[in-house]
Amino acid sequence: MKIAVIMGSKSDYPKLESGIELLETFGIEVVARALSAHRTPNQLSAFIKEIEQDTDVIIAAAGKAAHLPGVIAAQTLIPVVGLPIKSSTLDGLDSLLSIVQMPPGIPVATVTIDSGLNAALMASQIMSIKYPKIKEHLIAYRKEMEEKVIEDDKNLRG
Amino acid sequence: MKIAVIMGSKSDYPKLESGIELLETFGIEVVARALSAHRTPNQLSAFIKEIEQDTDVIIAAAGKAAHLPGVIAAQTLIPVVGLPIKSSTLDGLDSLLSIVQMPPGIPVATVTIDSGLNAALMASQIMSIKYPKIKEHLIAYRKEMEEKVIEDDKNLRG
Amino acid sequence: MKIAVIMGSKSDYPKLESGIELLETFGIEVVARALSAHRTPNQLSAFIKEIEQDTDVIIAAAGKAAHLPGVIAAQTLIPVVGLPIKSSTLDGLDSLLSIVQMPPGIPVATVTIDSGLNAALMASQIMSIKYPKIKEHLIAYRKEMEEKVIEDDKNLRG
Amino acid sequence: MKIAVIMGSKSDYPKLESGIELLETFGIEVVARALSAHRTPNQLSAFIKEIEQDTDVIIAAAGKAAHLPGVIAAQTLIPVVGLPIKSSTLDGLDSLLSIVQMPPGIPVATVTIDSGLNAALMASQIMSIKYPKIKEHLIAYRKEMEEKVIEDDKNLRG
Amino acid sequence: MKIAVIMGSKSDYPKLESGIELLETFGIEVVARALSAHRTPNQLSAFIKEIEQDTDVIIAAAGKAAHLPGVIAAQTLIPVVGLPIKSSTLDGLDSLLSIVQMPPGIPVATVTIDSGLNAALMASQIMSIKYPKIKEHLIAYRKEMEEKVIEDDKNLRG
Amino acid sequence: MKIAVIMGSKSDYPKLESGIELLETFGIEVVARALSAHRTPNQLSAFIKEIEQDTDVIIAAAGKAAHLPGVIAAQTLIPVVGLPIKSSTLDGLDSLLSIVQMPPGIPVATVTIDSGLNAALMASQIMSIKYPKIKEHLIAYRKEMEEKVIEDDKNLRG
Amino acid sequence: MKIAVIMGSKSDYPKLESGIELLETFGIEVVARALSAHRTPNQLSAFIKEIEQDTDVIIAAAGKAAHLPGVIAAQTLIPVVGLPIKSSTLDGLDSLLSIVQMPPGIPVATVTIDSGLNAALMASQIMSIKYPKIKEHLIAYRKEMEEKVIEDDKNLRG
Amino acid sequence: MKIAVIMGSKSDYPKLESGIELLETFGIEVVARALSAHRTPNQLSAFIKEIEQDTDVIIAAAGKAAHLPGVIAAQTLIPVVGLPIKSSTLDGLDSLLSIVQMPPGIPVATVTIDSGLNAALMASQIMSIKYPKIKEHLIAYRKEMEEKVIEDDKNLRG
Repeated sequence: MKIAVIMGSKSDYPKLESGIELLETFGIEVVARALSAHRTPNQLSAFIKEIEQDTDVIIAAAGKAAHLPGVIAAQTLIPVVGLPIKSSTLDGLDSLLSIVQMPPGIPVATVTIDSGLNAALMASQIMSIKYPKIKEHLIAYRKEMEEKVIEDDKNLRG
Repeated sequence: MKIAVIMGSKSDYPKLESGIELLETFGIEVVARALSAHRTPNQLSAFIKEIEQDTDVIIAAAGKAAHLPGVIAAQTLIPVVGLPIKSSTLDGLDSLLSIVQMPPGIPVATVTIDSGLNAALMASQIMSIKYPKIKEHLIAYRKEMEEKVIEDDKNLRG
Repeated sequence: MKIAVIMGSKSDYPKLESGIELLETFGIEVVARALSAHRTPNQLSAFIKEIEQDTDVIIAAAGKAAHLPGVIAAQTLIPVVGLPIKSSTLDGLDSLLSIVQMPPGIPVATVTIDSGLNAALMASQIMSIKYPKIKEHLIAYRKEMEEKVIEDDKNLRG
Repeated sequence: MKIAVIMGSKSDYPKLESGIELLETFGIEVVARALSAHRTPNQLSAFIKEIEQDTDVIIAAAGKAAHLPGVIAAQTLIPVVGLPIKSSTLDGLDSLLSIVQMPPGIPVATVTIDSGLNAALMASQIMSIKYPKIKEHLIAYRKEMEEKVIEDDKNLRG
Repeated sequence: MKIAVIMGSKSDYPKLESGIELLETFGIEVVARALSAHRTPNQLSAFIKEIEQDTDVIIAAAGKAAHLPGVIAAQTLIPVVGLPIKSSTLDGLDSLLSIVQMPPGIPVATVTIDSGLNAALMASQIMSIKYPKIKEHLIAYRKEMEEKVIEDDKNLRG
Repeated sequence: MKIAVIMGSKSDYPKLESGIELLETFGIEVVARALSAHRTPNQLSAFIKEIEQDTDVIIAAAGKAAHLPGVIAAQTLIPVVGLPIKSSTLDGLDSLLSIVQMPPGIPVATVTIDSGLNAALMASQIMSIKYPKIKEHLIAYRKEMEEKVIEDDKNLRG
Repeated sequence: MKIAVIMGSKSDYPKLESGIELLETFGIEVVARALSAHRTPNQLSAFIKEIEQDTDVIIAAAGKAAHLPGVIAAQTLIPVVGLPIKSSTLDGLDSLLSIVQMPPGIPVATVTIDSGLNAALMASQIMSIKYPKIKEHLIAYRKEMEEKVIEDDKNLRG
Repeated sequence: MKIAVIMGSKSDYPKLESGIELLETFGIEVVARALSAHRTPNQLSAFIKEIEQDTDVIIAAAGKAAHLPGVIAAQTLIPVVGLPIKSSTLDGLDSLLSIVQMPPGIPVATVTIDSGLNAALMASQIMSIKYPKIKEHLIAYRKEMEEKVIEDDKNLRG
């Protein structure tokens, strides 16, 4: 019951943090790594081989011409959840298109730009098809979200 | 070992066909349905409840303001693979953004615009974490793709 | 003579505030609610049913993959005015396309991104076809706007 | 119980035709005119004044820098439904933004690019708050749409 | 030898200021007005008629669905220089497309987003075909710009 | 009373043809040239010098990274009307931005993508501030356009 | 004096053909290969190692989330010229951004979408800094282009 | 062993600074100039002629309708690396398209928006095909980058 979180740059960490914490709350072991598809391709490949046997899902976050999720997806059959990171230009559109528009044969499961939370939830939902316990956590989490909106709604109505 | 394929309009079927065939080749039972988030919301909800217990992944395809994948994702914890369909205006950008940019809490695993194949492969990869047999099919499929490229490459080199 | 204002998240409230105040100035009863298409779909449906009989127009505001207006529009024939909210990425384009590009059959009356005022005015104009009193308020409001521009123009000319 | 349909160019007519026919089916009187905000501004103004008293909704369709809906909206308080028409460049984005992004004070109720049907349905929904008979037609129309999807779904399932 | 500068909102003035000052330096009489195509259409039309005889060029600045330049262009044959103003959403793209993409027959001479200076220079260049004195000013201005770049270049080279 | 029409490639000619014909109808002498900012920069400069004294307006048409209008504008004070040509990719957006977004100091009067007619009309309007006879032609042309729309409108009304 | 041309799919070949022919005309040895960053990552890496010693420039062409040029650039210091290929959706924008927006450290020299010719010319210009003979070919080629435009210009002038 | 760095405006310098420093570290002579394609076209041409014989690569940086790189490329066969600079509107898209979308015949080697570092590295890689010593520097630089990521990764793992 293990997830690997790979980010293209350590500076992407803040956008992943809340998602990682949530995964740990769900009792999932998280291995977080900063590995670049372009600057450390060998370390990346080595890491992918290393985790091949005992990892259920990989979350990969990257910005600009965000190749990391696709490069990982090409080297493993573990489902890769791709998180586009908005950088200082083009408002996130470059990252999104570079991750989601994968050519036929090697898909990446892309989620909302900058939402580490959605990446974590999608990874959990995928794992939940195998681990019923995670489904329970997800049911509880959705319940909480629902209650939060209901609470907000109550406050709004005064 | 079952996948539900839901399309917002029957006219999206041609873009899903090759993916559905591939899933069946992998020995996965596929239930394909045309159900609209907007025109048949009740039938959609009924169908989601009906499949809740025995379905591992849902593929949802839609165009324009493509709400279908997100609306499904809100009603189940089964992972939803979202397939944006390009329509006659805006070149697929509207469908893509309407599917991938889900608000925090309810992610959709979005894949390449118009690639029913990638939707099917992502769904299979997700299922493969539970069913080792699918992983074998996927390994074979990747091998085939590789050989296809190698063959193309050979032809190119003359 | 009642309008329902539904926002996908309480954090959208500041963009709706001036519009809501204007509606109240016009003597229209406003019920403002925070209800999410994805996180509280059941509460949303219950609320729509509840207001079905005595509400003339619904204003629905949402950001990112903004499904809220469309999901509401699918459940009622009350005209839905959709207000796209700009979020932290993509500069409002995702919200706009997710609201305006509704598939054939279920339209949403979309207005200017982030303009709660325009949402309120469009809702009032719609109601004014039934309630002559609102038309009077709108005539006065346009007069005021006109005078404001004339005043600005005077100041500019020095 | 009258709708005016104004198009910026006679060549936009094919995109409006099915919508106009639907309106007539609903028993609504439709006056269709080709009037340009730029080439015939006086005729346009004259027509708006002429219909001011007995028209409930105006549908305005235009392409490129589509000023027509906004220019009409500035001259009347009748709700204007704006229909962006895709032209030979920019894939409809110019028309959409020129119609929906109206400045504060003068909103246009914008619908799906090129969907004369959605323009007609939004206009009908607006009128239905005043004319219960139109609501009945709309209920029947939605029912039909639903049945059409159910039929498609049945065919798909084989 | 007169230019009219019309802005859709007084808040656009800061983006026009340096351009207006330059025009005055060139000895051109500038009449600056805040007149809205949507909120004060009658005042706008009256002003256009008023200046018809003695004005050589009109500069029109507007944001969002920026109809002002096109609406003016439809009412006069005086060349209209359109200045797109970036507003709080969509990064200026909406204003640009709403001004430049005029339908066949009524062109607007569109310049760089937010560059009141370029609007003023284009207006001056147009007037210079009639008034040789303005050409002299423009020659001097270009010379100054050139010297400014040469000075910058010298500083850069240290 | 002379206009130079410069196109970056002879293949742009069809988009300019109707505009050139119109200019000739107006009694304006038109010199049409195919000169590339990149492939024949010297011939281009020579031509600009050659026409400097007796040409009132330059129309420059180009596609993709359409530098031609701006490169011409940098070498003369004759007003340059820029016509963006849509090429096989990016739907005209590249040409438009490359022409309109000129840096401060050297504006280009940009018109509708692919509309040689609007380029010709803007050029005529500019010349009309000097040559009253062109204004008469333009008045007649607008009258004709108006009558054409009125005729279309009549046909539409049946 | 060798160039490697790598395409992500054999179907990209038609867009590269004229460029390859030009390179051969220049006396440059061209090795053309179809190798996918995602479907044959190992063959790709092997090929890059194989050519490392005797290849001066690599041209890499790919569509959609076009990772190929960047993935190659990460594995060698040979300059990589990236050619974005327009695919069936998004009009080439996805390919362009996925190639040009490389993160700091690993640049790709990106050229015009779909222009195999420009890719070949940029590769030749790069090689020309080392091989004076290629510079001679390029001078001749530019001369030819110039003459072609001059010829077109002559025909246009009639 | 010389590179010329040309920027359209001195204000672009901060985005080039780190790249220039890197080039100097590599032992490459850098000549940095502020020269505008539009405001100082003659000085620009003079400078290009001046450096023609002893310069290996030119880096050209510009914003908005960024013609500088293309205008330089048209005047020399020295490879031009184009650096798009993001300005205050359109988020860098205008600069990128104006640089990369060069018409057939005159390519510019475009790199990441605002990344002076990538411009410098691409220039170095190009020069390295001629000067083996630069290749050594680049190998060392890549090693450093790799170590930096490995260090970041170590810190992340705690």
